[in-house]
Amino acid sequence: MTSPVGLHRVIEPVGVLPQAATKLDNSPEIGADEVRIKVERLNLDAASFRQLATKHGGDGEAVKAEVLEIIGTRGKMQNPVTGSGGMLIGTVDAVGPHSPLGLSVGDRVATLVSLTLTPLAITDGLARWDGGGEQVPAEGHAILFARSIAAVLPADLDPELSLAVLDVCGAPALTARVVAGYDKPSVAVIGGAGKSGSLSLAAARRAGAARTVGIVPVPHEADRLGAAGLADEVALADARDPVALATAVTTALGGPADVTVVCVDVPGCEHGAILSTGDGGTVIFFSMATSFAGAALGAEGLAADVTMLVGNGYVPGHADYAMDLLRTDPAVRALFDARLAAEGAN
Amino acid sequence: MTSPVGLHRVIEPVGVLPQAATKLDNSPEIGADEVRIKVERLNLDAASFRQLATKHGGDGEAVKAEVLEIIGTRGKMQNPVTGSGGMLIGTVDAVGPHSPLGLSVGDRVATLVSLTLTPLAITDGLARWDGGGEQVPAEGHAILFARSIAAVLPADLDPELSLAVLDVCGAPALTARVVAGYDKPSVAVIGGAGKSGSLSLAAARRAGAARTVGIVPVPHEADRLGAAGLADEVALADARDPVALATAVTTALGGPADVTVVCVDVPGCEHGAILSTGDGGTVIFFSMATSFAGAALGAEGLAADVTMLVGNGYVPGHADYAMDLLRTDPAVRALFDARLAAEGAN
Repeated sequence: MTSPVGLHRVIEPVGVLPQAATKLDNSPEIGADEVRIKVERLNLDAASFRQLATKHGGDGEAVKAEVLEIIGTRGKMQNPVTGSGGMLIGTVDAVGPHSPLGLSVGDRVATLVSLTLTPLAITDGLARWDGGGEQVPAEGHAILFARSIAAVLPADLDPELSLAVLDVCGAPALTARVVAGYDKPSVAVIGGAGKSGSLSLAAARRAGAARTVGIVPVPHEADRLGAAGLADEVALADARDPVALATAVTTALGGPADVTVVCVDVPGCEHGAILSTGDGGTVIFFSMATSFAGAALGAEGLAADVTMLVGNGYVPGHADYAMDLLRTDPAVRALFDARLAAEGAN
Repeated sequence: MTSPVGLHRVIEPVGVLPQAATKLDNSPEIGADEVRIKVERLNLDAASFRQLATKHGGDGEAVKAEVLEIIGTRGKMQNPVTGSGGMLIGTVDAVGPHSPLGLSVGDRVATLVSLTLTPLAITDGLARWDGGGEQVPAEGHAILFARSIAAVLPADLDPELSLAVLDVCGAPALTARVVAGYDKPSVAVIGGAGKSGSLSLAAARRAGAARTVGIVPVPHEADRLGAAGLADEVALADARDPVALATAVTTALGGPADVTVVCVDVPGCEHGAILSTGDGGTVIFFSMATSFAGAALGAEGLAADVTMLVGNGYVPGHADYAMDLLRTDPAVRALFDARLAAEGAN
């Protein structure tokens, strides 16, 4: 009998869930409610890749070696420093008779559960990857449990485009839910030109935001976001500088934000986000670089009556909602197309 | 001109808030809006003390030496591993002419902002402390900013009793707010026999919980909490064992909790708390040992539609609310009296 949350795949420590495990059983034989995926590409979490690239000073071969070592040791891709993983795309290879996921052999899918809990084996030594980017062409297999989530990639869209959207699809869905809980709120999205940031800006507007600002760190991102027209205002600030960030937000919105969405994968943004948010407001932290203690103690230390949410990557209907934004909001589509074109040019 | 949030006391790195600083200016001269406290006792955060005690294998002298070294180096008490601090009590020693805190020289106060952002100097080498407990008799001075919070200790209560309650007063206030947002919810408090846990149980009941369970790790805590009558049910479980915890909660409540409150200061409780909570429910993390990534990725990996809150230690009126629970709920009072008696007997 296999566990719907994958307990039977945990080798050590015994009793924890797969995400907390240091070692998973990644053997290819599937249980009656499991699905096996033939891996085509890993999409490393931005915080994880940044940590690895920084640690190795941009030496791609060293980054590659460490990724292989992590997967080989853990039976999954989970950066031991950031704790984060990423997602993957591939083709359904085998479906257990009792799998509830509704997948069929041959479906091309993206996994919407983190690589940190997905049994994974690599068989090609990542030979087609140079260690220089988050997108990792790979051969091998991965296992989905009964309670995992995967999205079939739409046939009419570039799979890379779908993957880029699905990777962050929890952010716009949760942003929409929170924004809809306020009456005509002002919304600040820190890191508004990125994947999750731009989708969150689009979601905020659709969910009833009266005024939005996208905060970006560098002029070329400001130009890109401004040209897309996704935000009412675009402002430059270093999110790690609390006073500079709060000044940028309050200047753009005419006061502190009702809802602040943190989408930048660098440590140290908690205090600025809290300072940018008014009493009774909400901060949503989507960055895996968020420090729990930094947020909790920061709000206390500032006597800030703000609700702080851990950005849950799962909201029912999140994949459909994000894909709908991509299909129906030309500004979102333009930003994602430009991002893919830029990555392809690298 | 001094900053209301203490920016002028930050020595390094420049530009961050005091909580994120590695070194604060703890000089005793106060600015026009500052207050100086003559320190009487530090109350180390439970997670911080546990880490120090474990690291040094219970060697009190080594614990003491490290605390002195931290304060000497940083100008504040912030455990570099846990990131947490604690609070202090003392007597108001000097009040700047523009301080908005309403304090007078001679007031005996507890600081309700974390030690992690409070400039602090120790002058007695902690000579009266044996390094064996969280309560640290101390001489020295501390500085409050304009936007700090301090509560005057009630004259009719044992100061240690007031301090124990004020130390965790954010937990019952936030629990009450969240519980009141549901219609007759079921509430699970993980670590229900502790300070924040017992206050949260009392707050949940007062805020309209239909059914409550307190989860504790050991039988003597179950006996104590059961005798107090603060929860409808008391159950034993190791909060680090997700399946055991979820089984205990759902058995006691007849289903998953609508609101789960995590009050245990040990790492690895995120997954169990999420598994214990039903779709549409809320988890409030008060433990400084909470892993942000563990919570975010855990909920995603379990496809759990739960709202996860970073337990903000500040809610307007939190000190008064907690002291009112202590004064008016005999079960709360009995538990806190018993706790102080037990600590005194150590």
